[in-house]
Amino acid sequence: MTTDRETPATVSPEQSEREAELIRRVLSSFDGCGDERLKQLMQALVRHLHAFLREVRLTEAEWGAAIEFLTAAGHLTDDKRQEFVLLSDVLGASMQTITMNNEACGDATEATVFGPFFVENSPEIELGGDLSFGASGEPCWVEGTVTDTEGNPLADARIEVWEADADGLYDVQYDDDRTAARAHLYTDDEGGYRFWGVTPTPYPIPDDGPVGRMLTAVGRSPMRASHLHFLVAHEGHRTLVTHIFVRGDRYLGSDSVFGVKQSLVKDFSRQEPGSAAPDGRDLGRANWSKVRFDIVLAPADT
Amino acid sequence: MTTDRETPATVSPEQSEREAELIRRVLSSFDGCGDERLKQLMQALVRHLHAFLREVRLTEAEWGAAIEFLTAAGHLTDDKRQEFVLLSDVLGASMQTITMNNEACGDATEATVFGPFFVENSPEIELGGDLSFGASGEPCWVEGTVTDTEGNPLADARIEVWEADADGLYDVQYDDDRTAARAHLYTDDEGGYRFWGVTPTPYPIPDDGPVGRMLTAVGRSPMRASHLHFLVAHEGHRTLVTHIFVRGDRYLGSDSVFGVKQSLVKDFSRQEPGSAAPDGRDLGRANWSKVRFDIVLAPADT
Ligand SMILES: [Fe+2]
Ligand SMILES: [Fe+2]
Repeated sequence: MTTDRETPATVSPEQSEREAELIRRVLSSFDGCGDERLKQLMQALVRHLHAFLREVRLTEAEWGAAIEFLTAAGHLTDDKRQEFVLLSDVLGASMQTITMNNEACGDATEATVFGPFFVENSPEIELGGDLSFGASGEPCWVEGTVTDTEGNPLADARIEVWEADADGLYDVQYDDDRTAARAHLYTDDEGGYRFWGVTPTPYPIPDDGPVGRMLTAVGRSPMRASHLHFLVAHEGHRTLVTHIFVRGDRYLGSDSVFGVKQSLVKDFSRQEPGSAAPDGRDLGRANWSKVRFDIVLAPADT
Repeated sequence: MTTDRETPATVSPEQSEREAELIRRVLSSFDGCGDERLKQLMQALVRHLHAFLREVRLTEAEWGAAIEFLTAAGHLTDDKRQEFVLLSDVLGASMQTITMNNEACGDATEATVFGPFFVENSPEIELGGDLSFGASGEPCWVEGTVTDTEGNPLADARIEVWEADADGLYDVQYDDDRTAARAHLYTDDEGGYRFWGVTPTPYPIPDDGPVGRMLTAVGRSPMRASHLHFLVAHEGHRTLVTHIFVRGDRYLGSDSVFGVKQSLVKDFSRQEPGSAAPDGRDLGRANWSKVRFDIVLAPADT
């Protein structure tokens, strides 16, 4: 178990053995666990945690700072703010979990991070409806199809969409209980869907807490590449959690939560003010854009 | 970086490369960190965290359970309850940090976990005074010396002592703001110290939170071996955080925070009711005990 990396050369064999002995004691404390999977998780956690501590020779002051970090994260977390999810996100742990659990399957659309801003019980809109509900931003027409990996249209697939407004905030980040820039809708018999939203813009992840302070300390930007969240579910298919990103966005290469995949970068084409909207809606002289996103769901249990 | 352990044989080379690629992106996000130590800590954390995730192939449901665990721990933590310290304790991380930062130094007394129950500004008692302040338990006379590793007595060393009462609770675990079973005192010119406390008894770590639920789920006991906490400080010497344990205690082999070291197990000798107390105090027919603990402080910066 002990590797060179875990115990620097400056550590004596006796000291190294004391440290290894402690790890053996901690590991064996889980030997009686009747749940084999839980036992595997806890013992692996102990091994990797102690390997980290030993590799970096964590100081007592640093240990104290870590406890303070977790404490501050816990106190900031409530039903509208999830600092632990943010922490997992900025360490790439969320994206790694998504990556491991949604292996590539033919042409199935790739998954990306869920993020902390999904809310249950979003309003339902009709096909062609508008999910902005007054959120600031330029109108954006989104359309596409939902099919299986054989190309068969999936009717009645449930599509949840949520996004930040032009001020970079999700509705739940306002303290007035508004619901905006989120909705769900269902595909038609041909698997088609279409709706009005707002053109995504970059936003910082909430950076007024310990995660934001950590990003500042290490010189990382809190900005996320502009995106629109999708959650797509259809019986018999793997539920897809993903985003689409805006081609040309300046943060595609430095997304703070490592969510960008090339296959998810789409053309949000800017339309002439005054040009005809797909559904004949009168947009006046507003800037607007449109994007196509064809979604392919993998079979369930893949 | 990729080892067999990190990617099970069932993972395709393409999938493994996607996972490794993500780790490289996360690691490089810290490249611009101007604080070399912080950069080392964060990059090592990312490597070990992702190695853990990949080795166990963490599921999305398990990831969600981990987020819930941390959230519950955060909500339980306040100025009197520190669930993150408990978590660190039961995973052996606190003890490993102590072990790494307090390497053996001649005959210097060994360190052990600090625990979550130390409180600043404890009352001062005179030598021979009583720190129980009404805490339940059998009287215990504690005496010894504080010396350096050459055997020179250390006068005016500050000794902080704290312990649970016979009901297994520290004063801060009661909601009546009592101060009991804790105090500080100073050694005399010969490095000697002595005080009355209560004979330590086993107690469970607070197990009504997520850490306790985890221990239950894995079949581990929350019990700590009976102990008395010491924090000993003297200018020019390494501050010592330790306990003494009771020889014969049934939990010495299964201490829930891995704090037991053989050198810290002491004879708490039971005295005849009615026998003469060291300071002539009238104990009536009470059971009482006494213990000797000679403390050796390592030089500072060792
Ligand atoms: Fe988002
Ligand atoms: Fe204790």
